[in-house]
Amino acid sequence: MSYPIADRMRTMQPSPIREILKMAADPKVISFAAGNPAPEAFPTEAIAQITADILRENPVAALQYSVTEGYQPLRTTLKEVIKANYGIESPGHELVILSGAQQGMDFTCKVLCNEGDVIITEEPTFVGALNTFRSYQLNIIGVPLEEDGISLEKLEAALAANKGKVRFIYLIPTFQNPSGLTMSLAKRQGCYELAKKYGVMILEDNPYGELRFTGDELPPIKTFDRDNLVLYVGTFSKILAPGIRVGYVYGPPEVIAKMVVAKQCNDTHTGNISQLLCHRFLTQYDFPAHLEYLRGVYRKKCGIMLGELDRLVQNKITYTRPQGGLFIWCELPAGVDMPGFVATLLEHNLAVVPGSAFMVDGYASVQTFRMNYSTPTDEQLYQGVAILADVINRVLQ
Amino acid sequence: MSYPIADRMRTMQPSPIREILKMAADPKVISFAAGNPAPEAFPTEAIAQITADILRENPVAALQYSVTEGYQPLRTTLKEVIKANYGIESPGHELVILSGAQQGMDFTCKVLCNEGDVIITEEPTFVGALNTFRSYQLNIIGVPLEEDGISLEKLEAALAANKGKVRFIYLIPTFQNPSGLTMSLAKRQGCYELAKKYGVMILEDNPYGELRFTGDELPPIKTFDRDNLVLYVGTFSKILAPGIRVGYVYGPPEVIAKMVVAKQCNDTHTGNISQLLCHRFLTQYDFPAHLEYLRGVYRKKCGIMLGELDRLVQNKITYTRPQGGLFIWCELPAGVDMPGFVATLLEHNLAVVPGSAFMVDGYASVQTFRMNYSTPTDEQLYQGVAILADVINRVLQ
Repeated sequence: MSYPIADRMRTMQPSPIREILKMAADPKVISFAAGNPAPEAFPTEAIAQITADILRENPVAALQYSVTEGYQPLRTTLKEVIKANYGIESPGHELVILSGAQQGMDFTCKVLCNEGDVIITEEPTFVGALNTFRSYQLNIIGVPLEEDGISLEKLEAALAANKGKVRFIYLIPTFQNPSGLTMSLAKRQGCYELAKKYGVMILEDNPYGELRFTGDELPPIKTFDRDNLVLYVGTFSKILAPGIRVGYVYGPPEVIAKMVVAKQCNDTHTGNISQLLCHRFLTQYDFPAHLEYLRGVYRKKCGIMLGELDRLVQNKITYTRPQGGLFIWCELPAGVDMPGFVATLLEHNLAVVPGSAFMVDGYASVQTFRMNYSTPTDEQLYQGVAILADVINRVLQ
Repeated sequence: MSYPIADRMRTMQPSPIREILKMAADPKVISFAAGNPAPEAFPTEAIAQITADILRENPVAALQYSVTEGYQPLRTTLKEVIKANYGIESPGHELVILSGAQQGMDFTCKVLCNEGDVIITEEPTFVGALNTFRSYQLNIIGVPLEEDGISLEKLEAALAANKGKVRFIYLIPTFQNPSGLTMSLAKRQGCYELAKKYGVMILEDNPYGELRFTGDELPPIKTFDRDNLVLYVGTFSKILAPGIRVGYVYGPPEVIAKMVVAKQCNDTHTGNISQLLCHRFLTQYDFPAHLEYLRGVYRKKCGIMLGELDRLVQNKITYTRPQGGLFIWCELPAGVDMPGFVATLLEHNLAVVPGSAFMVDGYASVQTFRMNYSTPTDEQLYQGVAILADVINRVLQ
């Protein structure tokens, strides 16, 4: 039979990164294309110990149905953690456990957006979020990123041109994916003031915030939220393990209550073993020491990639210098065919992600590509940048 | 600020069962309102052993990001299991792992249904599915259940009256929730033929099929699916543990491919520890022996509830006699105020779910209520039916 595919899904495709990763599964290929934590970043012994304790001490709580909002001790602890780490504390706001931060994007759309509503994102931005927004048939407006974050002039122009139609602004202020850039304090305040002025919510996604390995901490936009207009999304994917699928959203109770209903209709609740594991890891282990270890791992890996880029291609391409997170964003000189360049890299066994994947128009003509330093081994970092330099030298000849 | 709640969520409320369960949290209250497996049904020692093995032998596979489709060995094993247990085998059909069966309802709507499309359900039916369908703003048509399953005449009338507009028929043929009824073989074939005749898909939900404790096995509708129009949803919630959140959907590759994209936009993938646990439980433990044990637990509990109903209220109310699953469906005599009756039960410390919760119109005036026998202890089963009989005797005086 011919299937009645819904309008929202008819043109939806799997993430282009997935397709690249399939090619990168060839063991000959060095992948700078993923966004995975380093395997050595997982505290596997602690996780094994905690999981054994949970299943011995409290098996029914781990195995039975539980409430959609999430494991209450974890919700309470997370509120304390985001207050202690970031100064986030909005009186009366609620925190709900999600099956990964991606659900924060999904349920925000489900709860706040009708088909055709306008949302604003940084551009480039996280392809996973873009795909979720597309699946809700939203009118996505991309506002260009600058060195210190989103262009406030262009953000205000987009808000003014779509007055009353914009449902939220999606921002990754810290170590942005894909750019690795961090929004300045002034721009964080500026974004908040613009959202307030135009009566628009902000969806603040902070998956990498704990992974700062250099530079000074900056407050999340949520810390300014006296007007109850910021939804803050966090995750355990980069600080504990992504395979356990635990994230959370913290925001105004009216919106969170509807997100709970959306979650109930989707997966009932997040897996209990994962939730209990996160709670015990936060409360019974030395979480700050684990974060310090992670920062060391990524400081070193980023340092290798940046060092090799500086040594081999400094005056040939431009690239960002992240203070944390997982990604470096590169730009080829004008005139170089980016898709052809990325294809040539793959022929030489190096996978990167073409920048077009992160644009609102996924076919946009751009000179950019994304590289990840967390997943490769140190040796692969050296080898991969050497391949990159080799191909650049041929192309620029 | 006033939040721009989307049309689809504006009138959505949490499941009424959740509200009842909150009252039933009072330890004085005996709850026949849940749908939880018996705590003694969890193979906790096996789960603890398998989880420890996974985290010792294969920690990175358990903790890293993985593919949206699910853990490949589990997908392969589940195809073998549904073939061996039920004779389900549709050439070329694909199986995707979900974070619980509820996602099967969600992603089916996301992939197949535009706002305002018509779907057909048994009535009464599972309130969780109804809420998901409502959240997609579907036009839900309920077709009455009879002793041997959905009314085929009324099903055909609904299909004929909405020709070209019906996207799928949602059915729980075996030990239906809330009724406990099982659809006859003739009606299973009749539903399939009607779906084929009208070019409509069937969403077959089979959460309880493995829990038959009396009577003869009947084939799932999926076994008739020569025309590639059935999506079959299964789950580990009732046969292993709901807290691990693992379900699956098996169906035509064109639809499954879009469901994978929908899942990627929602939770990226299902938790790995849970998936690896299910795979090892199916392949390395004596799964048939575990099912036989479960059937024994539910046979006994259902027997107690039915025995006490027969002894105490046989000629006063009517009730179904399930051959498996978790629920008994009761009907009060005409003229008795059902909501008042359920409220009086709660005053006497017995919680049941009013039948209106399972109707397309959640405020429908019905005489029915649902009782669960899997969650209470044996003693609570005796005590609860005694309370029920006591209140019935007063009301019918």
